Amino acid sequence: MMPDSLEQTLKTIDAVDPNWMRLAEDWQLHLTKPPGSLGRLEEIANRCAAIGETLSPKVDRPRILLFAGDHGVCEEGISPYPQSVTSQMVLNFANGGAAINALAKACQLELVVVDVGIAHPLPPDIDLVRRPIAPGTRNFCNQPAMSLDHAKLAMEVGIEMVALACQEGCHLLGVGEMGIGNTTAAAAVTAVLTGLAAQRVVGRGTGADDACLSRKIRAVQKAVDLHKTVASAPLELLARLGGFELAAICGACLAAARFRRPIVIDGFIATAAAAVAVEFDPRVRDYLFASHRSPEPGHMFLLERIQHRPLLDLEMRLGEGTGAALAMSLIRCAVTAFTQMATFESAQVSGPSSSKK
Amino acid sequence: MMPDSLEQTLKTIDAVDPNWMRLAEDWQLHLTKPPGSLGRLEEIANRCAAIGETLSPKVDRPRILLFAGDHGVCEEGISPYPQSVTSQMVLNFANGGAAINALAKACQLELVVVDVGIAHPLPPDIDLVRRPIAPGTRNFCNQPAMSLDHAKLAMEVGIEMVALACQEGCHLLGVGEMGIGNTTAAAAVTAVLTGLAAQRVVGRGTGADDACLSRKIRAVQKAVDLHKTVASAPLELLARLGGFELAAICGACLAAARFRRPIVIDGFIATAAAAVAVEFDPRVRDYLFASHRSPEPGHMFLLERIQHRPLLDLEMRLGEGTGAALAMSLIRCAVTAFTQMATFESAQVSGPSSSKK
Repeated sequence: MMPDSLEQTLKTIDAVDPNWMRLAEDWQLHLTKPPGSLGRLEEIANRCAAIGETLSPKVDRPRILLFAGDHGVCEEGISPYPQSVTSQMVLNFANGGAAINALAKACQLELVVVDVGIAHPLPPDIDLVRRPIAPGTRNFCNQPAMSLDHAKLAMEVGIEMVALACQEGCHLLGVGEMGIGNTTAAAAVTAVLTGLAAQRVVGRGTGADDACLSRKIRAVQKAVDLHKTVASAPLELLARLGGFELAAICGACLAAARFRRPIVIDGFIATAAAAVAVEFDPRVRDYLFASHRSPEPGHMFLLERIQHRPLLDLEMRLGEGTGAALAMSLIRCAVTAFTQMATFESAQVSGPSSSKK
Repeated sequence: MMPDSLEQTLKTIDAVDPNWMRLAEDWQLHLTKPPGSLGRLEEIANRCAAIGETLSPKVDRPRILLFAGDHGVCEEGISPYPQSVTSQMVLNFANGGAAINALAKACQLELVVVDVGIAHPLPPDIDLVRRPIAPGTRNFCNQPAMSLDHAKLAMEVGIEMVALACQEGCHLLGVGEMGIGNTTAAAAVTAVLTGLAAQRVVGRGTGADDACLSRKIRAVQKAVDLHKTVASAPLELLARLGGFELAAICGACLAAARFRRPIVIDGFIATAAAAVAVEFDPRVRDYLFASHRSPEPGHMFLLERIQHRPLLDLEMRLGEGTGAALAMSLIRCAVTAFTQMATFESAQVSGPSSSKK
C-alpha cells in the first residue's frame, strides 16, 4: 500500500481529542482579556490546539492548494464563460494576475496551483504542478464524469499535495478551485448528498442569466436522476457527478485530517468536496474550517450537513481559494493571540472582582 | 487658528465624490473575475479609491491608534474590573502582551497607544504617547464627565495623532480604545443619540453579572436624565457623557475625513465616538469602515444610525482595536486585488459569452 494512497490515508485518520479542546479553553482564561471576549477567534485557536495536540499550535507557512480541472457538462450550456477560460485563468494564476494572487500576497500565503485535468493546453514553462488525470471530465448528463480509478487518482493528487505541504513545514492549509462548470458539478453532488431538488441547490455561479440558469437546473436534475441510485458511496458520487478538482480537494481534506493540520475550505465547490470527505470519514469534520458563506443557494445546505458555521459573509462568489485566503488570515490572528498573549499573572493585570481572592 | 485645531479640521472636510465611486466600479469590470464576484471586497476597494480620488489607492503603513482613558462613573460599580486595569493593560500594550499586540503583529499593522487620561500612574520609560487631559473623567451621574475645553483638547489629541500618521505615510487608519467603564459611557452617548432607554443600549461589557448590569443600566439612565436636555450639540454630548478616549476617537474620525484617509472603527465604544463625529459633520460617514458587529446591544443601533454594515461578525467584545485590526487586513486585501489584478485584456482571458462581440 503506497504511503499517499487513498486506502492508507483512510486507515490513519484519528479523531480530534475533546480533552485537548478543554485544555485550550482553560488556557484562554489565563490570557489578558475578559473570558470569551475574542469570540470565535477563541474557538478557532482552541480547535487548532486540539488538532495539533499542543498549547503552542503553529501557523507557519500557510499554503493554499488551488486545484483546476475542466467539466464535460459545459456542453449543456451551463456557464456564461467558455471552457477555455479554465486554462486562461490558470495561466493568469501562474503570472500572478488573479484575485487569489493578490489576496495570497496581501495575506502572505503560499499558493500552489495544480492541474488535475484541464482541457486546453497550457504553455510548458509556467509555475504549475502538473498532475492531469484527463483533459476534462465527461458530460455527466449522459455518463459518469469519470471512472472510479480516475476519481481515486484525482483524490490521491490532493493527498500528495497535502503530504508535500506538511513535509515542507506548512501548518495551515487552504483549498480552492478553478474550473468552468464546476458549480454545476458541486450542485449535483449537493443534490445527492442532501436529497434536495436541483432547483434548490443550483445558483447563478459566475453569473448565469435566466436562460443559462434554467439549463443548469435541467442538467443537474438530469444527472442526478441518471446517477443517484448508484452514487451512494462517496467515491462513486465523486466519479459520477464530481470533477477532478473536487476529488482532489476531497483527498486533500482526508490527508489534512491524517496529518493533523487545520484545513480551510473555500466556498460552495470546495465545501461540496469537503462534505464528500466527511462521508468518507466523519472525523474529518473537526479538521475543517468553513471560510465564508457563498451566495450560492446550495452552500448553506452543505454547511448545515457538515455542521460548520462560516467565518466570513462578504458576498464573495469567486472561488480560487479567495475566501479561504481571508479566513486563513483570521486563523493566523486567532492562533497568534492564543500563543503570544501575556497571562494575567505574567503581566500583573487584575482579574474581574468576582474572581478576586 | 492652529492647524490641528478642531475648528480648522471641521472647516476642511470635503465629501467623498460619488463620481470616483463610479470610476472605481467601472474599473472593477476590467479585472479578471466575474463582475461583482469579490462581493463586499469590491465595495471596500471602490470606496478607498473614491476617498483617495485615485484608481491606485494605497494601504501602506496601516496604523491602529489605541486611545486609553479612565472613567469617573466606575464609582457606580458598573464594571467587574477595578479601574487600575486600564493602566495595567496599557503597560501590557507597551510590553506587547495584549490581544491587540498579537493581532497587529499577525496582520503587520503599526500600533500607537495614546494616554488621553489614565487615572493611575504609569512607568516613565514605556512605549506610550502621553497626552493626558486629566487623571480620568468625573462621574457623569453627578456632573459632566469633563469640561467643554477638555473635550475639545481630547478631540485635538485624536486629530494630532491622525495628522502625524498621515505625515508619516499611513494610508489606512484604525481606532480602538481601552478604559475600564467605557461601555457605560458609550451606552450613555448611544442613549442620547438614539433616544432609546438605557436598558436597550446597555450590555454586559467585559462581563458584568446581573447585579452589575442593573447598576450599569441605572447609572446610564441617571446620567442621561441629568444631561440630555443640554447634550444635543456633539461637543456637549462628548463632554457630559463621553470620555477622553471617546473624544479622541471622534477627533480622529474628523481628521481622517479631513486628510482623506479611510478609518476603521472598532466595536461599540469606537462606533459611539464615530457616530458623534458624524453628528459634527455627516460627510465623515463615507470615510468610515465598520469593522465588526459587537454583541453589545447598543452597537446595532449606532450602526443603523451611521448607516454602516460591519464587515465581520465574530462575537468579539474585547475592544483595544482588535476588530479594527482584522478588518484592516480585509481592506488591505480588497485594495490589493483592486490595484494588482490583471485585466481581461492584459491577461487575454475571455469574458462571459453574452458580452462577446
